[in-house]
Amino acid sequence: MSEQDLKNIANVLSMAQSVAIMPHLNVDGDALGTSLALALALNSCHCQADVLLEEEVPAMLDFLPGQELIKKAPKDRYQVALNIDNGDITRLGGRLEVYNNAEVRLSIDHHATNKVEADISFVDTKAAATGEIVYRMLTQYMGLPVTQDIALCLYTAIITDTGGFRFSNTTPVTMEIAGELMKTGIDFTNANKMVFDRISYAKLFLMKQTMNSLMLFFNGKLAVSYLRWSDLASFNAKLEDTEGLVNIGRNLEGVEVSLFLKEEKPGSFKGSLRSNQYVDVAKVAERFGGGGHMRAAGFTAEGDLEDIVRALADAIRASLAGEA
Amino acid sequence: MSEQDLKNIANVLSMAQSVAIMPHLNVDGDALGTSLALALALNSCHCQADVLLEEEVPAMLDFLPGQELIKKAPKDRYQVALNIDNGDITRLGGRLEVYNNAEVRLSIDHHATNKVEADISFVDTKAAATGEIVYRMLTQYMGLPVTQDIALCLYTAIITDTGGFRFSNTTPVTMEIAGELMKTGIDFTNANKMVFDRISYAKLFLMKQTMNSLMLFFNGKLAVSYLRWSDLASFNAKLEDTEGLVNIGRNLEGVEVSLFLKEEKPGSFKGSLRSNQYVDVAKVAERFGGGGHMRAAGFTAEGDLEDIVRALADAIRASLAGEA
Repeated sequence: MSEQDLKNIANVLSMAQSVAIMPHLNVDGDALGTSLALALALNSCHCQADVLLEEEVPAMLDFLPGQELIKKAPKDRYQVALNIDNGDITRLGGRLEVYNNAEVRLSIDHHATNKVEADISFVDTKAAATGEIVYRMLTQYMGLPVTQDIALCLYTAIITDTGGFRFSNTTPVTMEIAGELMKTGIDFTNANKMVFDRISYAKLFLMKQTMNSLMLFFNGKLAVSYLRWSDLASFNAKLEDTEGLVNIGRNLEGVEVSLFLKEEKPGSFKGSLRSNQYVDVAKVAERFGGGGHMRAAGFTAEGDLEDIVRALADAIRASLAGEA
Repeated sequence: MSEQDLKNIANVLSMAQSVAIMPHLNVDGDALGTSLALALALNSCHCQADVLLEEEVPAMLDFLPGQELIKKAPKDRYQVALNIDNGDITRLGGRLEVYNNAEVRLSIDHHATNKVEADISFVDTKAAATGEIVYRMLTQYMGLPVTQDIALCLYTAIITDTGGFRFSNTTPVTMEIAGELMKTGIDFTNANKMVFDRISYAKLFLMKQTMNSLMLFFNGKLAVSYLRWSDLASFNAKLEDTEGLVNIGRNLEGVEVSLFLKEEKPGSFKGSLRSNQYVDVAKVAERFGGGGHMRAAGFTAEGDLEDIVRALADAIRASLAGEA
C-alpha cells in the first residue's frame, strides 16, 4: 500500500458516474459516518453515489446527515464499488454481489487485518479512523469542499473509533483533522452526546444489576461482579449491552483486579479479567483454560457461581500477594 | 485585557527570581495542571517557582508530574505572585496574604466573572482552559521548551475543563494545542483514565441507588430518580458525588425530561430538571419557586417525596402534551 493508491482511488472516484459505497455489517460511527461523508461529497459533483445498507441505521447514529443517500435495494450494477472501513469481505453480506459486479472495485480501510481483494486498495493502519483517510482524500486529492454536513459525518467517524480522542490510536493528526472539521461550525457537542451518552433500557438494567452484584475482596483490591442468565434473558441482551461492564469494578478506587462473570447459558460463565497496574491477569486466565493480555484476559467456566468465584479469588490472591 | 498584558506577564515571569503560583481552592485539573506546568517551566530556567496549596492533591490528579514543587508552608515573601484559573480572590483562602505581600501581583484566567485585582491581569474567556493560555505564553512569549512533563500537566488541564473535548467551550485552537502536546509522547490515555474513569465508593453507591430508584412515566418520556437523606448520610456524600446523577435518566433512550430529587435534609429536597429536545424545564421549575434554563433547571421543595413527584409529574405532563 502506498499513498499513490489513495491518489488513484481519488482519481477513479472523481471520474465515476455511479458509486456504491459499502460499510461493514453492524455498521458503526466510523463506517457509516465515512460512507455518508463520501456520498455527500460525490453527489455534490454530478456523481450518483449510494450508501448500501442491509440494516437499520443504529439509533445512536440517526442524527447523521445524508441518510437520504442510503439505499436498501441497490441498483443491479454500479460503475464503481467501494468497500469502506471493512477488512473482511464476508462482512459485506448480501452486498458482495454488487461489489463483485462493479467495473472497478475499491477499498479504503485502517484495519491491520485487512485482506479484502480490490482493484485498488488503500489501508492505513496509522489512521485512527477510516474517516481520517477520507478527509485527507477529499481535501488533498479531490479538492472537494468539506461542508458542515460532511464535517459532522467525519467528526462522528473519528470520535467513534477513538473513544472521543481517548484511545491510544489517537494521534496529533487526529486532533488536527478534528479541529479543521470543527471550524465548519458543526454541533460537535451533540454528536458526542449521541455517540457516548445515550443508554438503552437493557444497558441501564444490566449496569444496575452489575453494580448491585459487586463484591470486594482482599481489602478492596479485587472487585467481583456478575450477571445471571436470567438477567441477560429478561432483557434479550445483546453483546454490546454487556461490553465494558467489567470496567465498573476496574474503575473503582483502590481496585487492582476486576473479575466480571456473565452467565451465557445456565451454568456456563464467560469470565472477563482486568487489572490496573501490576497483576498479570493473562496468567490467571491461563490457569482456567483462557488467555489474553497482562491487563485484559478472559476464560470460560462451568459450574456453580460461588465455586468459580472462590477458585478465581484464590488465584488472584496469590498474584496480589506477589506484589506486596 | 489585551494580548499585550499576556506578553507583559511573560516578561515579568522571565525576569523573576521567586514566584508563588496559586490556583483556586478545591483545586481541579485545569488549576493544578496549569500551575504545575508553569512551575516546571520556570524552575528549568533559574527561577524558584513554588505552587502554593492549602489542601491535599485530589486522588484523581496524583499522577501529575511536578508535585515536588508544591509547598504547603510558603516562604514569607515572593517577588512575584501569580493567581491562576481563579476569578474570585477569596478563593485563595489563607494564601491571600502571600499574594498581597508580593512585589508584583499577576493573574491569568479564563472565567468571564473574573474580578481579581492584580498589577497585570490577563483574562481570555475564549480559552477553554487556563492551560491553553499558559501553553501560548510559554511557547510564543517565553520561548521555553514544553517538556513531556509540562505537556502532561497542560493536557490534563485542557481535558478537565472541556470534558475531554466534548463541552461547547472546545475550539479548533484547543484541538491544535492538544495535538502539539501529544507530540511530546505523553501517556494521554492514562490521563483520560485518571480524570474521567476513576470512581469513588460513594459515587458508585449513589449511582446504584439512583438507578435502583428510577421510575418512568408517560410512556417513558419522563424519568424520575431520587436519593434519600439516609443514602447521602451513610456515605458522607460530597457535592461532587451527586453531580451528574440527573443525567442517568436524561440519557436513557426515549426520555425527554429527567427529574432527580436529592433529600438534602430530612424532608427537604433539591430538585434537578433536564430536558433533551423540546420541554422548557425552566418554566416547570418556576412553578415550584425555582428557575434555570430551557434544558437545565432546579428548585427546592419540602414535604413528602411521593407528593412532590406527583406534583412535578403533573406539571411535566402538561409540557410534554404541549408538543404532541
